[in-house]
Amino acid sequence: MYVLNREQKLISQIKNLVGASGRFIGDDCAILPGNLLITTDALIEQTHFSLNSTSLNDLGWKAMAVNLSDIAAMAGLPEYAVIALSAPEAFYISNNVIALYEGLQACADHYQTSIVGGDITRGPVLAIIITIVGRARQSGVLRRSGAKAGDVVLVTGDFGASVAGLRLLTENNFFSFPYCLEKHRRPQPRLTEAAALIEKTGSRGALMDTSDGLADALAQISQASSVGMQIDLAAIPMHADTRSVASQANLDPYDLALYGGEDYELVACLPKAVWQAWHNQSPESAKAFKVIGIVNDTDNIQLMFGNEPARQLDLKKVFQHIS
Amino acid sequence: MYVLNREQKLISQIKNLVGASGRFIGDDCAILPGNLLITTDALIEQTHFSLNSTSLNDLGWKAMAVNLSDIAAMAGLPEYAVIALSAPEAFYISNNVIALYEGLQACADHYQTSIVGGDITRGPVLAIIITIVGRARQSGVLRRSGAKAGDVVLVTGDFGASVAGLRLLTENNFFSFPYCLEKHRRPQPRLTEAAALIEKTGSRGALMDTSDGLADALAQISQASSVGMQIDLAAIPMHADTRSVASQANLDPYDLALYGGEDYELVACLPKAVWQAWHNQSPESAKAFKVIGIVNDTDNIQLMFGNEPARQLDLKKVFQHIS
Repeated sequence: MYVLNREQKLISQIKNLVGASGRFIGDDCAILPGNLLITTDALIEQTHFSLNSTSLNDLGWKAMAVNLSDIAAMAGLPEYAVIALSAPEAFYISNNVIALYEGLQACADHYQTSIVGGDITRGPVLAIIITIVGRARQSGVLRRSGAKAGDVVLVTGDFGASVAGLRLLTENNFFSFPYCLEKHRRPQPRLTEAAALIEKTGSRGALMDTSDGLADALAQISQASSVGMQIDLAAIPMHADTRSVASQANLDPYDLALYGGEDYELVACLPKAVWQAWHNQSPESAKAFKVIGIVNDTDNIQLMFGNEPARQLDLKKVFQHIS
Repeated sequence: MYVLNREQKLISQIKNLVGASGRFIGDDCAILPGNLLITTDALIEQTHFSLNSTSLNDLGWKAMAVNLSDIAAMAGLPEYAVIALSAPEAFYISNNVIALYEGLQACADHYQTSIVGGDITRGPVLAIIITIVGRARQSGVLRRSGAKAGDVVLVTGDFGASVAGLRLLTENNFFSFPYCLEKHRRPQPRLTEAAALIEKTGSRGALMDTSDGLADALAQISQASSVGMQIDLAAIPMHADTRSVASQANLDPYDLALYGGEDYELVACLPKAVWQAWHNQSPESAKAFKVIGIVNDTDNIQLMFGNEPARQLDLKKVFQHIS
């Protein structure tokens, strides 16, 4: 069932090319000796954002948030960021640089990360490439490959709001559903939630962020862990505004939730007993997570609606990776 | 004398914006607690290279070398690299990715650095953004700001060959002067030489690489250290092929050497006695360095030709920084 997409094929080739060190490649961060985590992510104008629909301050926030989300995806602790900036010469006026860096810095500050260096170059479009160095927490890290049959599937936050917000922006509809706009513009990486999770559960389990969509994250975890899942569509958290945007646009809200991407939420798989104990003993920290399904030993992801089988997960709709 | 150029002004603004963590910004690498070094550098098509005149294998080598040179510039030890790649969709065919990664990997292997992760995105031109994480050596690091009056000014290798090679490439002259072409295409970061230097001299001194040209490095060290220099043009090492390219093109060879850039050599300032002791006791490791001048307590860089004052250092000719 898990057909490699084009990016995965390239990554697989690259892993072969880089030989032994390729063992680090495949999760959201490289995990290195000394519990060092490294992750790098690029935001490129026209591919990832349009300056017509984002302020530079929001863009700075988002560029940092996207990278921090990769640290959250392994339940790590971010420490330092370096920022490579490329832009046409005309971009480099003080007001632009200040607005962009204020956004970058606001997000870095919020998540206690120090911006410690960078590079400034000329290029045809605005591009922001951030590398974050962090540490694994004492309890270890959670990878994509740690899910086992019988685990519950948990998620943070809600889904589909970011792509709903993007839709509003492209329609110049800036006022109707601020929740969706805010979720698209200033995503909140789930570092605190990931820290609570690994503190409560240790490193037995699987974790990933949903930068490329909930469906993609479920598929990636299933593939890396060689398991299947049963997911209850009715249990996937969605904000009322997201449902309204879907309804007004005559779109299936579950398509937004599954395939929309850029939610930067977490998907975790944990032993059911661990989850129940956590939920019973520390309902405050557990309440950031909701159960949406269960891991099984099939080789597919069965979508349900309550107890009724629903549509198939459509991997062709999964957020295009080389993006 | 040291007028801030546009990049330096922007960096200065950014340092203010990022507040306390800005103390790490300004050298070739950020130096972090735990002796961690981080550096990031972008190579952007059309700004830094043309696919008409470089093979992807050479480009991969160079992208890695440029970043490793920033570690050499602080006498550090490189450990890990992450690579963010952005390119038009048509670029992403196996042969291109393999050729590029073979070059990246060859250089990383040569300098014992592990490629541990990356990101692949779509963008209007080919862009390769590498971040390297390394360690300071036991003896510490050498910064730009450590030069003192009375120090000797030392350099590795030779100057002007890379820009001479670039000139040959843009003229489609691929055969006459292979030394210059090779120096432009596959620069050799001076990690071994930097390691020998700091082992022999400890962390008293100044060091920088000449990615933006010899003149730029001399000016940056002078500015950061609040010193002046007297530099003997006749002592600047130049390869015979570089002189030939200059002569055939009716160019001043010293302009190539001073302002050409992309040599990725080192400039170091050391106490004269330390240099003499090193030179006497370990001529083998010392011979990688040549004396080209002396640090003084003026506020300018006086170029000499032997004992005669020569031209002024022309900072307007210094390699354009936002590039």
